[in-house]
Amino acid sequence: MLDTYRSILAEIGKLSSAQSLLGWDQQTHMPTQGSAARADVLGKLARLEFELATSDELGRCIEDLERSSDLTDEEAASVRDIGRKYRRQKAIPPDVFEAFTVAQSKGQASWAAARANADFNRFRPNLVELVDFARQFADYYGYEDTPYDALLEPFEPGMTSRRLTEIIGPLKADLVPILKRLQIDGASPDISVLEGDFPIERQREMSRHVLELIGYDFESGALDDAPHPFTTEIAFGDVRITNRYEANDPVSGLFGALHEGGHALYGQGMTESQYRLGLSDGASFGIHESQSRLVENQIGHSRAFWQFFQPRAAQFLPQFAGADPEALYRAVNLVSPSMIRVEADEVTYNFHIMLRFELESALINGEIRVEDLPSLWNDAMTRTLGVTPDNDAEGVLQDVHWSMGAFGYFPSYMLGNLYAAQLMAVLRADRPDLDSEIAAGQFEPLVAWLRDKVHRFGGIYRAEDLMRRISGEGLNAQHFVAYIVGKYSDIYRL
Amino acid sequence: MLDTYRSILAEIGKLSSAQSLLGWDQQTHMPTQGSAARADVLGKLARLEFELATSDELGRCIEDLERSSDLTDEEAASVRDIGRKYRRQKAIPPDVFEAFTVAQSKGQASWAAARANADFNRFRPNLVELVDFARQFADYYGYEDTPYDALLEPFEPGMTSRRLTEIIGPLKADLVPILKRLQIDGASPDISVLEGDFPIERQREMSRHVLELIGYDFESGALDDAPHPFTTEIAFGDVRITNRYEANDPVSGLFGALHEGGHALYGQGMTESQYRLGLSDGASFGIHESQSRLVENQIGHSRAFWQFFQPRAAQFLPQFAGADPEALYRAVNLVSPSMIRVEADEVTYNFHIMLRFELESALINGEIRVEDLPSLWNDAMTRTLGVTPDNDAEGVLQDVHWSMGAFGYFPSYMLGNLYAAQLMAVLRADRPDLDSEIAAGQFEPLVAWLRDKVHRFGGIYRAEDLMRRISGEGLNAQHFVAYIVGKYSDIYRL
Repeated sequence: MLDTYRSILAEIGKLSSAQSLLGWDQQTHMPTQGSAARADVLGKLARLEFELATSDELGRCIEDLERSSDLTDEEAASVRDIGRKYRRQKAIPPDVFEAFTVAQSKGQASWAAARANADFNRFRPNLVELVDFARQFADYYGYEDTPYDALLEPFEPGMTSRRLTEIIGPLKADLVPILKRLQIDGASPDISVLEGDFPIERQREMSRHVLELIGYDFESGALDDAPHPFTTEIAFGDVRITNRYEANDPVSGLFGALHEGGHALYGQGMTESQYRLGLSDGASFGIHESQSRLVENQIGHSRAFWQFFQPRAAQFLPQFAGADPEALYRAVNLVSPSMIRVEADEVTYNFHIMLRFELESALINGEIRVEDLPSLWNDAMTRTLGVTPDNDAEGVLQDVHWSMGAFGYFPSYMLGNLYAAQLMAVLRADRPDLDSEIAAGQFEPLVAWLRDKVHRFGGIYRAEDLMRRISGEGLNAQHFVAYIVGKYSDIYRL
Repeated sequence: MLDTYRSILAEIGKLSSAQSLLGWDQQTHMPTQGSAARADVLGKLARLEFELATSDELGRCIEDLERSSDLTDEEAASVRDIGRKYRRQKAIPPDVFEAFTVAQSKGQASWAAARANADFNRFRPNLVELVDFARQFADYYGYEDTPYDALLEPFEPGMTSRRLTEIIGPLKADLVPILKRLQIDGASPDISVLEGDFPIERQREMSRHVLELIGYDFESGALDDAPHPFTTEIAFGDVRITNRYEANDPVSGLFGALHEGGHALYGQGMTESQYRLGLSDGASFGIHESQSRLVENQIGHSRAFWQFFQPRAAQFLPQFAGADPEALYRAVNLVSPSMIRVEADEVTYNFHIMLRFELESALINGEIRVEDLPSLWNDAMTRTLGVTPDNDAEGVLQDVHWSMGAFGYFPSYMLGNLYAAQLMAVLRADRPDLDSEIAAGQFEPLVAWLRDKVHRFGGIYRAEDLMRRISGEGLNAQHFVAYIVGKYSDIYRL
């Protein structure tokens, strides 16, 4: 039965790999006129994969293997995850799912138009429809406490609304006064050192260089341009990164590369066996995000990194030749509450997620209505960050997620930041000389630690189990608070 | 029945498109470590396509539609071609085909090793096996005259050994004395104008520029680097080119771009309906090659082109700034008998094909043995071109085709040259000012003519039918001879 199970997973993996490559190409090299045909091809492969992933034969394998006591840890984890996905996919009647994909497609088109016109009302009826689907899906999936929990499940298995609320309460209570102090009493960094015109081609080379430095393997990957940076695991041995660059910003491309590089190291650090068993997505979306945020923020935004990297950066961007590493370090860590999540700094970023979590969970749990979203959004932004969107495009319409019917995804971004800080606390205890190593451009010990503690396990352990193995405790947001207080008190000279 | 037929073709088309993209990626962006997984994914999609392409349901559709009198020309052509492919695929017992794919795979590995060591004997047993398969296949397919005819069929439907022999006899008789005269009495061009170091990046930009000039649509295509240039029709609206560049050769990349550009204009000039009906491969491989050779040679190697292009080239390669257009024109048309087909000039190129045709048809028809190939090859090279390979790597092992079991492919290269000259004769009659247009950089009339006469018909007409429609006669190699005599008498001042 295990052989049959493995061979069905292998076939699913091949179809999935083809879709990943087609999706990657769509964002990188595909000419505009190729998009209609591409959608058809992707649809075909998705249907074929769905047929296999919901086949009775796979169902029988899962039931049988769930009763088996002869499985390795990896095999048992595979059966656990594939079984969970199988039952979720089977839970939705095909005609309901079909109607949902139509609603998704309409939702994205409507959202794009609404955003371009900064007019939430255009998107409102589609969002109502998508929320209804999400609520229906939650009922089909089943849940213990709130419907929203059923939607969190695929992104953060085991996570619940209740637990998130317990985490967010004290976290917000801690971060609000910190942010206030920085804004009122802090010495804000001078960012003029980051101004100028920085050729895209040189930035691209710098990104390639920094990826080589952190051990990203170009024999098992590639770096390409795309409108939105992403990492994609096309197959074992083929984990690609995309990135984008701004001519008037020398570091957004660099941090994009470090962020995606963190994801990609995770993907490159898993075994072929994990790829074959469907365990190559990692422990959870939050853990995946912890790997990107650790490399991007905890390392890339550190003083030690800029001590090392300033002369390297100057090799690509001559403006950096005379720059003071300390000035660069402070400049890249400017805290500036803003309307847009993807532009947010480390201190304010989680507020954007808390807002989205509170709104989407209330939507799904039936506590607020879609029509109230814009004003609830704007009020919350004003209350927590002190900035008010001028229009819906820079408010409630800024993210694509809801237009795809993806509710429950946002919390992973925040969890990534929290996990990263918690991992970093253990890493610092394990390697007291980490800063000296980074300042000397020695990234191997860092990456070796991540591989040993996180990457090599792929999706074998669930997120909090993995954290307990590594740190001796479940998720603890206080590590993030301590990190923020320590780092920004110093930068802002409090 | 037509609806079912169209929908099966649509599904085949999607699987085929995915394979094209995966194949393109394999040659352009895929990291080396991704190759094992990629082979599995391609194998899976090929199997799925094969199942559809040999399904009983498609067979019933073909039989039914072959009796129908309600089909459009396009639909009838589709049924003719798809029916032909269907019967060929069904003719081979699955276990024989399976064994053949294994032999192909071993053959390619063995050929690569043999070529690297310039040792034919390493490849010999594999080639014996592949020739045996080809002879078996010919028997399964059936033929009227010789087994080789059955292998020509997929590349040049309707072409036969007999007809090729009839063409080659007089062609060789005409070309041999021309070549002799050029070598003995001709004033050989000075090629020092092409010497120097030419940055790859600027050559790439020049290729992009020349592709834009000839009307290649980058909204429906892309230009990427690959070890061997090729054009691939990924889908309607997505016809991509790859190219390569040599730092010490300013024109091989340029001519590569023009060659692939010619293929790609054909692919971009067909209709969506032809793509859907499986008619987007064009009239034949030879006709496809005529489009690339016409643009590469008849246009790209013309005096008018270099009158126009010399200052353009200088924008990319400063060495060309002071160059005399006439000197460039003569230099790119140097005639120099050499061992390697892909490096051959216009005058000697066809000799390489004649040699291959004579050997492979004799092999398949059982007139010679594999073990005699190296000496037969070397003797023929000495006799016709006056050059003798030092070893098998620059002789019988130079081409990949036989190692893939692809017999019957080579003649298309020669036919492309012949068709191109014949088309050009009509084009010159239709547009007496063509040279002035090219010299002024006006490529629209040329491309409009090709679209109108050739591209827009896709695979509706068979090769010689298409030629008759355009030129009033079937294939006539005398147009090529007249072209060569006229052009090279002038260049070599005879």
